[in-house]
Amino acid sequence: MSRPDGRSPAEPRSVEIVPHFHRNAEGSVLYRAGGTVVLCTASIDAVVPAWMAGKGKGWLTAEYQMHPRASRARREAREGRGKSPSGRTQEIQRLIGRALRSAIDLEAIGERTIVIDCDVLEADGGTRTASVTGGFVAMALALAKLRASSVVAPVLRDQVAAISVGHVGGEAMLDLVYEEDSQARVDLNVVATARGAIVEVQATAEGEALERRALDGMIDVGLAGVAELVTMQRSALTAAGVELASLFQAGRFA
Amino acid sequence: MSRPDGRSPAEPRSVEIVPHFHRNAEGSVLYRAGGTVVLCTASIDAVVPAWMAGKGKGWLTAEYQMHPRASRARREAREGRGKSPSGRTQEIQRLIGRALRSAIDLEAIGERTIVIDCDVLEADGGTRTASVTGGFVAMALALAKLRASSVVAPVLRDQVAAISVGHVGGEAMLDLVYEEDSQARVDLNVVATARGAIVEVQATAEGEALERRALDGMIDVGLAGVAELVTMQRSALTAAGVELASLFQAGRFA
Amino acid sequence: MSRPDGRSPAEPRSVEIVPHFHRNAEGSVLYRAGGTVVLCTASIDAVVPAWMAGKGKGWLTAEYQMHPRASRARREAREGRGKSPSGRTQEIQRLIGRALRSAIDLEAIGERTIVIDCDVLEADGGTRTASVTGGFVAMALALAKLRASSVVAPVLRDQVAAISVGHVGGEAMLDLVYEEDSQARVDLNVVATARGAIVEVQATAEGEALERRALDGMIDVGLAGVAELVTMQRSALTAAGVELASLFQAGRFA
Amino acid sequence: MSRPDGRSPAEPRSVEIVPHFHRNAEGSVLYRAGGTVVLCTASIDAVVPAWMAGKGKGWLTAEYQMHPRASRARREAREGRGKSPSGRTQEIQRLIGRALRSAIDLEAIGERTIVIDCDVLEADGGTRTASVTGGFVAMALALAKLRASSVVAPVLRDQVAAISVGHVGGEAMLDLVYEEDSQARVDLNVVATARGAIVEVQATAEGEALERRALDGMIDVGLAGVAELVTMQRSALTAAGVELASLFQAGRFA
Amino acid sequence: MSRPDGRSPAEPRSVEIVPHFHRNAEGSVLYRAGGTVVLCTASIDAVVPAWMAGKGKGWLTAEYQMHPRASRARREAREGRGKSPSGRTQEIQRLIGRALRSAIDLEAIGERTIVIDCDVLEADGGTRTASVTGGFVAMALALAKLRASSVVAPVLRDQVAAISVGHVGGEAMLDLVYEEDSQARVDLNVVATARGAIVEVQATAEGEALERRALDGMIDVGLAGVAELVTMQRSALTAAGVELASLFQAGRFA
Amino acid sequence: MSRPDGRSPAEPRSVEIVPHFHRNAEGSVLYRAGGTVVLCTASIDAVVPAWMAGKGKGWLTAEYQMHPRASRARREAREGRGKSPSGRTQEIQRLIGRALRSAIDLEAIGERTIVIDCDVLEADGGTRTASVTGGFVAMALALAKLRASSVVAPVLRDQVAAISVGHVGGEAMLDLVYEEDSQARVDLNVVATARGAIVEVQATAEGEALERRALDGMIDVGLAGVAELVTMQRSALTAAGVELASLFQAGRFA
Repeated sequence: MSRPDGRSPAEPRSVEIVPHFHRNAEGSVLYRAGGTVVLCTASIDAVVPAWMAGKGKGWLTAEYQMHPRASRARREAREGRGKSPSGRTQEIQRLIGRALRSAIDLEAIGERTIVIDCDVLEADGGTRTASVTGGFVAMALALAKLRASSVVAPVLRDQVAAISVGHVGGEAMLDLVYEEDSQARVDLNVVATARGAIVEVQATAEGEALERRALDGMIDVGLAGVAELVTMQRSALTAAGVELASLFQAGRFA
Repeated sequence: MSRPDGRSPAEPRSVEIVPHFHRNAEGSVLYRAGGTVVLCTASIDAVVPAWMAGKGKGWLTAEYQMHPRASRARREAREGRGKSPSGRTQEIQRLIGRALRSAIDLEAIGERTIVIDCDVLEADGGTRTASVTGGFVAMALALAKLRASSVVAPVLRDQVAAISVGHVGGEAMLDLVYEEDSQARVDLNVVATARGAIVEVQATAEGEALERRALDGMIDVGLAGVAELVTMQRSALTAAGVELASLFQAGRFA
Repeated sequence: MSRPDGRSPAEPRSVEIVPHFHRNAEGSVLYRAGGTVVLCTASIDAVVPAWMAGKGKGWLTAEYQMHPRASRARREAREGRGKSPSGRTQEIQRLIGRALRSAIDLEAIGERTIVIDCDVLEADGGTRTASVTGGFVAMALALAKLRASSVVAPVLRDQVAAISVGHVGGEAMLDLVYEEDSQARVDLNVVATARGAIVEVQATAEGEALERRALDGMIDVGLAGVAELVTMQRSALTAAGVELASLFQAGRFA
Repeated sequence: MSRPDGRSPAEPRSVEIVPHFHRNAEGSVLYRAGGTVVLCTASIDAVVPAWMAGKGKGWLTAEYQMHPRASRARREAREGRGKSPSGRTQEIQRLIGRALRSAIDLEAIGERTIVIDCDVLEADGGTRTASVTGGFVAMALALAKLRASSVVAPVLRDQVAAISVGHVGGEAMLDLVYEEDSQARVDLNVVATARGAIVEVQATAEGEALERRALDGMIDVGLAGVAELVTMQRSALTAAGVELASLFQAGRFA
Repeated sequence: MSRPDGRSPAEPRSVEIVPHFHRNAEGSVLYRAGGTVVLCTASIDAVVPAWMAGKGKGWLTAEYQMHPRASRARREAREGRGKSPSGRTQEIQRLIGRALRSAIDLEAIGERTIVIDCDVLEADGGTRTASVTGGFVAMALALAKLRASSVVAPVLRDQVAAISVGHVGGEAMLDLVYEEDSQARVDLNVVATARGAIVEVQATAEGEALERRALDGMIDVGLAGVAELVTMQRSALTAAGVELASLFQAGRFA
Repeated sequence: MSRPDGRSPAEPRSVEIVPHFHRNAEGSVLYRAGGTVVLCTASIDAVVPAWMAGKGKGWLTAEYQMHPRASRARREAREGRGKSPSGRTQEIQRLIGRALRSAIDLEAIGERTIVIDCDVLEADGGTRTASVTGGFVAMALALAKLRASSVVAPVLRDQVAAISVGHVGGEAMLDLVYEEDSQARVDLNVVATARGAIVEVQATAEGEALERRALDGMIDVGLAGVAELVTMQRSALTAAGVELASLFQAGRFA
């Protein structure tokens, strides 16, 4: 079955990572994967939410927002304006936050809050996984800056990235574009580490339920995709002058 | 590792299903699994939301709400009152809705809306999976009532149930109580059919990421648990005078 | 004039009071009066709202909510979700709170907050008066539990119950069902004590104004109804192992 | 027991009614009763709410709002701004609406909506009863204007007014000022017609419950107070050139 | 070009200022300019917002609200009720606040908050400028009362008033009524001091852009109008027994 | 007086205009003026709001939002999320909308809605004027695209741009950065056309009121700044292959 952009089933979209796109945030990237563009910023603030104060621990949280013209077809109302963010948005924010918290040692960062803002400027499928993958790079840039000021010991415990897999036309397809996503029978998002360990798997059969064996195959494809993305994350950081290994706690870098 | 209630690792909690507990809804059960109690009602209305009108198709949606005293420890503010339901609540509602929609043929029910209300009266872990499992029985009772009035052909396509699995102390544990849940390194919810096919898997590592092999083991334990629950669902329906097979489309009953 | 359920004009509906229905709350009853079912829980928390702190006094407040399928006819939107509770709901909550506060000595309970949650599971008229009558029993069960822990001296000052009276077809009718309520020219709710003293009277002529003499007759019927309910409350408490007299302040038990 | 302003127990405050104070509304009065001042406007619009359209009937509704500096002591936040009006405000609005709807024949006014706005500029007790009493005059002025344009037959069925009664120091006291209100053991509001028939009675014992006999005495005092107010309403209307009798349906003027 | 009320182009509407209309506020006026009526109250509270506490400085803020029947044509929904005030309302509130803050020395009033409430009872154009002009008088009355209690040194730095100017039919027109406002090509509001210095200018071309020369002419007309209004403010204050000069800081009175 | 970035008083910041930055919108630019960066998109939809339907006219509206990390110092809460946009945001949106509506012939665009989204990614003063200036270019690119599809006749009537002027240290300063803005005694924003005609002037004295002569000087400086900006707008459009003249109605291009 041929794909709209001619990729083979297990081939991810080409990725472009522009570091320091946003000049005010402690870390930032403009993350492009095909027609999906996310501006990820990482801000570090030397306070924690009131409910965490005095525990000597830090916190990380994420916000996700679609630009009103993220869709190719037409402008939509600005998400969450004048009302609570939608259930979908909150679900995605919680996913990004969990994924990136799993990568760092919150005890080690001290009473600081890291906020990852993921603003989807253009959307063509895979915006939540792009937010995790790009958000990790923005976070690493911010941690490198923090580290440069010599205040904080290394805090990274894992390198994480995320990708989507669909079950389309009887086959597992990596990194779906919007057009494929709307035809997929099953939609799976996988967040995993550079070592191939699993941080989060969410698989949803929109139509017919899925055989166990087929699920296993989709997870395999997803883990292979994550392995490609972690390489791209490292290259982008190296190009920006940051050696990822230097941000890792002893014995954790893979 | 011993469990708070003495169960073996792969043993689900004892379940009690009280059919017709609520007299006004088309279908209802009071679903008890250990210290978790959910009132599930299924209401059928002969209209669909405006955005679906005129397509000859039906719709199914779910609402989930915690009673303010669902927790053993203390009363909490009434969820979603005077403000939007929390992200967690919306996430659970969406899960219940997807799970039960996968069980029926929306074309076949005609322009009707089924609403599944899951009111958690007491909470001791596993409230979202209890809502799916109990919600399926309430839905079947309502469909039997609809069927008795001879208007609608069989609409069921699958029997679904859900259960949680945790990774606690290096081992997969089925159907966690609250105390276990808060210690689990990984939390997995699985929604599956009577045939063992997967409707939804959500696995989240709260701490250290999980080896692929361990994930596979947890899914195995969860599917075995679902197999036990579907048997209990059928017994409860039979006791209430409803033969599940009669509600199934030809060739779909397993 | 015959009534839909065959009762005589001054006859209340049969009442069933299931104590300890909810296992987590300090006190609870499932209160059934004909087709009306209310789950009443009483939660006691050892703090008071900020505006009352440091005065050595306690507080009692109530919440009231209709289950979305409380009506026999059809499901309605979940009350107060994503917006403020309706004016009607707030009015009822204030009534329940005032009624039950009049029954206890807030100085004597110390800096504690009692919250009475009244969840109307099924509605066939008289839900606000059922909430007061059932709420009193839940509160007494919670106070008995608190008393058993020897911390608090007796705090009850009055036993209260409530009932509705309508003016239908020229006659006072006790404890209206929904069908009668919608035809009543005048609707009266009376909250009174076991001694027959009045805590609250609310009479509203929906159509033609009411002669003073007719109002007096309606109040008479209502007070007789309350006298029957207080007997039922005592029986239910005795059956649950609680002697009401033991919870009363000296010289106040009637 | 002496009163703060030297009145005898059954003596209402002196009332001043300034007709046509607001020039844009179809009817308006500035209503002053001692230290309480309410601007009442009656607006008539030739449409009804969507849920009433096509029935050939009219509707009447009321809004009530406190000026942020209505209290003598200090400014308070503007009621209901940026959030829903408080439960108290909604309760009062519903009372004013019911009271004034009872005075007119909604069939006879045709598909029109009358809105009574009661803006409390200064508050010294009795603002809800002042709103009913002043609101009736504003409504009559608007109906006279409508009548002058010859479109509508007489629509009034009753003349209504309202007053408060308290039980202070063992005695019924008419028309409480704020200082008395805060000391009253029981608070009663009565809405009645010029014939002395009852539209609404709300009696609430804030402390000790009230003997039936004492309630009867308070209602007597309240009805006598209403009788004085209806006379003042008529004088004010006559002075403004409106004969109330001309607005009444045949045989209804008392 | 003739004006609806026969005024010449540079002639303001006749103004009536009723001091002490509201008896509870520290200062108040009922301000009438033709068909526009604004109730302005000034409340002084001996606290400041939390973000200003401990700086020894005071604060002044303003609220503006339209009465639902302010318009001659028909009743409109109560502004800002159950939702945030409109953008227009907030813009006006910010303008009034800035204008009156520029008139006083916030250091000199100490930790006090002055709130100016401008309730537009009737609207016929120029409500925001009427609020500034009337609000200044209410503020001066409140400051005189504060001064009388000898606690505070003089705090006034400038006398301010505001007026609107339109460009209608090729000519600058002062103090537009609603009918003119809706035809104006350009709308300008000017807030200025008794010395003719400018506090705020807002000019907006709704249609064709405006030549620089024409703008200058409109400002001239506006400043002349303000000069007339400051004289009226002084007369009203003198009639109320307040000499404005006595409230001014040394060397600031013009 | 020297400026933080070494500019002379009447010198604007260097501007960079990146056309087509956003690939989905009909028109877009990334607009950079010093440390201020605004992503402006223009979306054209072939419908109008319900209140305008059937009039054969189009509409233009604008939205403005600050990125949570727009400030150099620290992250701020996402503006308008879960609540209404602030008064400041609404004021700015209304300004951008008025400014760009003045540039086009709404009759000529037919029943279409143009929405200009101005997302401030980085903020260093002058974000509202940057939004107008960049928004005009995005709009022109979108109109060129619409024009290319031959459906619409030329609709532009004026070329508009905007800039800020401050009164700092006794002198008019063009195009303030944040640091200057916070010290300015007077803040003025001017929107004007390529011909030098005025669309909007807003001048606000935060401290001492301003002499008329000084206001005139500030407007002069602002108009000179706008003249420079309109040149830059044209160059950017030319570089993007769009000749502005071709979008103008006959006789309107300056």
